[in-house]
Amino acid sequence: MKIGIAASKGYAIGTVVLKEENELNIEERAVENVEAEKARFKKALEASKEQLLNIKEKAAKEMGADKAAVFESHAMLLEDPEFAGAVEMGIESNKINAEKALQDVVDMYAGIFAAMEDEYMRERGADVKDVGKRVLANLLGKISGDSDLMADNTVVVAHDLTPSDTAQLDKSKVVAFLTNIGGRTSHSAIMARTLEIPAVVGLQDITSSVKNGDTIVVDGIEGVAIVNPDVETIKKYEAKKEAFKKEREELKKLVSVKTVTKAGKRIEVAGNIGKPEDVHQVLANGGDGVGLFRTEFLYMDRDDMPGEEEQFESYKYAVEKMEGRPVVIRTLDIGGDKKLPYLPLPEEMNPFLGYRAIRICLDRKDIFKTQLRALLRASAFGNLKIMFPMIGSLEEFLKAKEILKECMEELKKEGKDFNENLETGIMVEIPAAAVCADELAKYVDFFSIGTNDLIQYTLAADRMNEKISYLYNPMHPAVLRLIKMTIEAAHKEGKWCGMCGEMAGDEKAIATLVEYGLDEFSMSASSMLKAKQLIMQN
Amino acid sequence: MKIGIAASKGYAIGTVVLKEENELNIEERAVENVEAEKARFKKALEASKEQLLNIKEKAAKEMGADKAAVFESHAMLLEDPEFAGAVEMGIESNKINAEKALQDVVDMYAGIFAAMEDEYMRERGADVKDVGKRVLANLLGKISGDSDLMADNTVVVAHDLTPSDTAQLDKSKVVAFLTNIGGRTSHSAIMARTLEIPAVVGLQDITSSVKNGDTIVVDGIEGVAIVNPDVETIKKYEAKKEAFKKEREELKKLVSVKTVTKAGKRIEVAGNIGKPEDVHQVLANGGDGVGLFRTEFLYMDRDDMPGEEEQFESYKYAVEKMEGRPVVIRTLDIGGDKKLPYLPLPEEMNPFLGYRAIRICLDRKDIFKTQLRALLRASAFGNLKIMFPMIGSLEEFLKAKEILKECMEELKKEGKDFNENLETGIMVEIPAAAVCADELAKYVDFFSIGTNDLIQYTLAADRMNEKISYLYNPMHPAVLRLIKMTIEAAHKEGKWCGMCGEMAGDEKAIATLVEYGLDEFSMSASSMLKAKQLIMQN
Repeated sequence: MKIGIAASKGYAIGTVVLKEENELNIEERAVENVEAEKARFKKALEASKEQLLNIKEKAAKEMGADKAAVFESHAMLLEDPEFAGAVEMGIESNKINAEKALQDVVDMYAGIFAAMEDEYMRERGADVKDVGKRVLANLLGKISGDSDLMADNTVVVAHDLTPSDTAQLDKSKVVAFLTNIGGRTSHSAIMARTLEIPAVVGLQDITSSVKNGDTIVVDGIEGVAIVNPDVETIKKYEAKKEAFKKEREELKKLVSVKTVTKAGKRIEVAGNIGKPEDVHQVLANGGDGVGLFRTEFLYMDRDDMPGEEEQFESYKYAVEKMEGRPVVIRTLDIGGDKKLPYLPLPEEMNPFLGYRAIRICLDRKDIFKTQLRALLRASAFGNLKIMFPMIGSLEEFLKAKEILKECMEELKKEGKDFNENLETGIMVEIPAAAVCADELAKYVDFFSIGTNDLIQYTLAADRMNEKISYLYNPMHPAVLRLIKMTIEAAHKEGKWCGMCGEMAGDEKAIATLVEYGLDEFSMSASSMLKAKQLIMQN
Repeated sequence: MKIGIAASKGYAIGTVVLKEENELNIEERAVENVEAEKARFKKALEASKEQLLNIKEKAAKEMGADKAAVFESHAMLLEDPEFAGAVEMGIESNKINAEKALQDVVDMYAGIFAAMEDEYMRERGADVKDVGKRVLANLLGKISGDSDLMADNTVVVAHDLTPSDTAQLDKSKVVAFLTNIGGRTSHSAIMARTLEIPAVVGLQDITSSVKNGDTIVVDGIEGVAIVNPDVETIKKYEAKKEAFKKEREELKKLVSVKTVTKAGKRIEVAGNIGKPEDVHQVLANGGDGVGLFRTEFLYMDRDDMPGEEEQFESYKYAVEKMEGRPVVIRTLDIGGDKKLPYLPLPEEMNPFLGYRAIRICLDRKDIFKTQLRALLRASAFGNLKIMFPMIGSLEEFLKAKEILKECMEELKKEGKDFNENLETGIMVEIPAAAVCADELAKYVDFFSIGTNDLIQYTLAADRMNEKISYLYNPMHPAVLRLIKMTIEAAHKEGKWCGMCGEMAGDEKAIATLVEYGLDEFSMSASSMLKAKQLIMQN
């Protein structure tokens, strides 16, 4: 049995097809005719763009417009003058071949992403590499094999799958995939969840543990793969597969059902999103709203601060598509582990205890006001709520509100519309905020408990640190007490309390959270239906 | 006005005497006769040792045996075969002059200390450099000027003062000193406090801001120096100096007074110590006990783990000298920022949230048991209590107790004495421990609140991080609530609760802590008398 990371739920029993690694060898060559080399690069760039737009069309048909969008963003990277410019500059100043110049730029971009702690952003490095590989293949005249000669019931086994590899999987034949590397939030994992085919990633050496034609069981729930199972095992997994299929059908029925606890309380089940387009996935899974819109995506993967207009368009898109459902947008949560190339931050000994999130925003009012103005303007187009991260004291919240008020007055003078009564709340993720929740509740409109950080600080245990990750326990009595205190404090002041950390979608925690009176559960779209079902049983 | 770090309390008005920097230039020279060079080094080593023992005698007379001990430890460094051996090895294998070989070894030792986060240990690097400089001066035939041609009322101004410089200050003439560098826990600062002469360190550029003969006001409380003050200022500081002198005399009367609050509650005022010899300072300031004995000193500045016998001797020394007064000894609090050269730890993104203290001890039972056995054996000689740091859950405490029990059984079989009923308690420094204090109180014999870390975690603010150190606030309502909860939880179970973080000696916090019912205040020896006075006023 091989153990990896469960990336997409479900079971499959199928036949191994090993995806060949077509490693493209790059050698540095000196070039004389720089212009000709640049032209060669341009041509490969154009060809790659065209291929990506074709893949996008195919993906749109099979997975919907929102998932296809990744290929548009891939194509956009190729259109980015910074990217192409950097490669051309490399050809010109080093007088080297396009392949090497391209690889240098891709490595640099990928390196920036790889250094990020945020798993989501780190996985974006894979996107850049995917695009780079395609351009390289075009340069070398080896169009990356988009051939599909797979039999029915195929389990694709690969070192890694790029988003374009994944999008091109023929769902009528491929029943699951397994990879050596990758994480839960890599694009291929996200696509597997959209395609609803089970997947296990991060299996380390699965490619060298199987051969073509092997029978294999894939368990996308436990994150394991069983090579050449015995009859007993096959029987067991056939039964699991059947049960899972039934459950999935059951869950699908819940999409349009309102979530009500046994005691008759209406609960809001909402989605956590990272990009405006993600709202479609939330709606498709029956989400009552967006409980956490991380706005970092707008700031990352670029060379300068996003302007007010650009931010406004993104926020407006999300609230409009959510058609009046609440959309809680968190202000910039950068710093600590998440760095921006154009915002130098001090090196810190303990970045999780450092200069981050609201601490940066209160210090850098220029950055903060641009975002607040964009948020306010978008609030005219839907049910937008603003949430401040990393609030540790009442003082910080009041300061943030004051700056928000300043923005409101500016907009008023400029004659720009916004919702003057929009709700403002805070993430409760610092222990001090939970301990003083009764005081804070008098001033905020809502709380949203950010369990990932709250647990980390309460237990003094960095969950990314393997040596002590065993200490990271959402069900630790101290954590549960702080959660309970926070919910009760909110209710005492007639405010609502949500949760947008991973714990909100944790099947083992839901009953307790319902008992504590949590009003809103926000989680990844793929966990929402199961959560709805569990909440309704409690 | 120049602003620095207040290193020793008091006021002085005097005349500047700039201490000349006799920079010793070292050049690398190739040597042929390695044996002759080694002999030259040996000779300088012996001369240095003799000088240090002379200084020690002088210091013992003026400052007492405990303060003089630093020179014994300096002399011991010179006797350490590892140190001398490394220099000789350098001469031999690189065929270089003794000066360069010595400097390399000193730099290496100093570098190890400099990399430590713990201020106390970091300052130890200055000791190594001091000793190195003396040996170098002897090698170069320049005995470092121990001449004392100072007038009355001298304020010594120097880039830095080594411990031997400080010990040789003529207290009848020198009324204060100022340095560019150094911290509150450097040996020269500690000595200034013992000599009771005001000192401000870390003034950055004081040596270039004054000239010989300038009049200067030294404020060792606010940490400032005023060069060539006007008459008004001099008058003001004369008055302050007088008042301070009176207060010091008042405080001295408290040495043998038992500390009782206005409500009639007997409070224990205890000392935090880093070395067994520090107990003398605690006793000299009327300490009721030792509230925190940091045992890291035993593990640092060496090449291997200290054995049971060596540890036993240290603990025994402290408890015996304290003559029945309680001595709370904290088990090894290494890791995170404090590294040991012989115990490789993983690189961590957030060491304060990582693998440290009890987490290492529970993982490395071998290290833990050696210490616990030594502690148990020392418990036969006085009132020793064991305290476990960084406890985050009941489970951890019970595990630690289990290992302690194992040690007790071993010692029983070996027929070795120990106090079977010795108290075991925990540091309350992780928010989870404070939040669950009611549960923990049922199992421990006592709590000691470690405010430095508790504040840091509760507010998610690394106090060493300058960018956000403004957030580090001991009087934050969340911190105060957790402290109150912890004290009340202890009392409910009939246990006592102390505090050994800096807050225990914080004049602004003492009234509140008395009100909350804190039973024991443990702090640096120099703060104890003032704390006694304040406690008695509340």
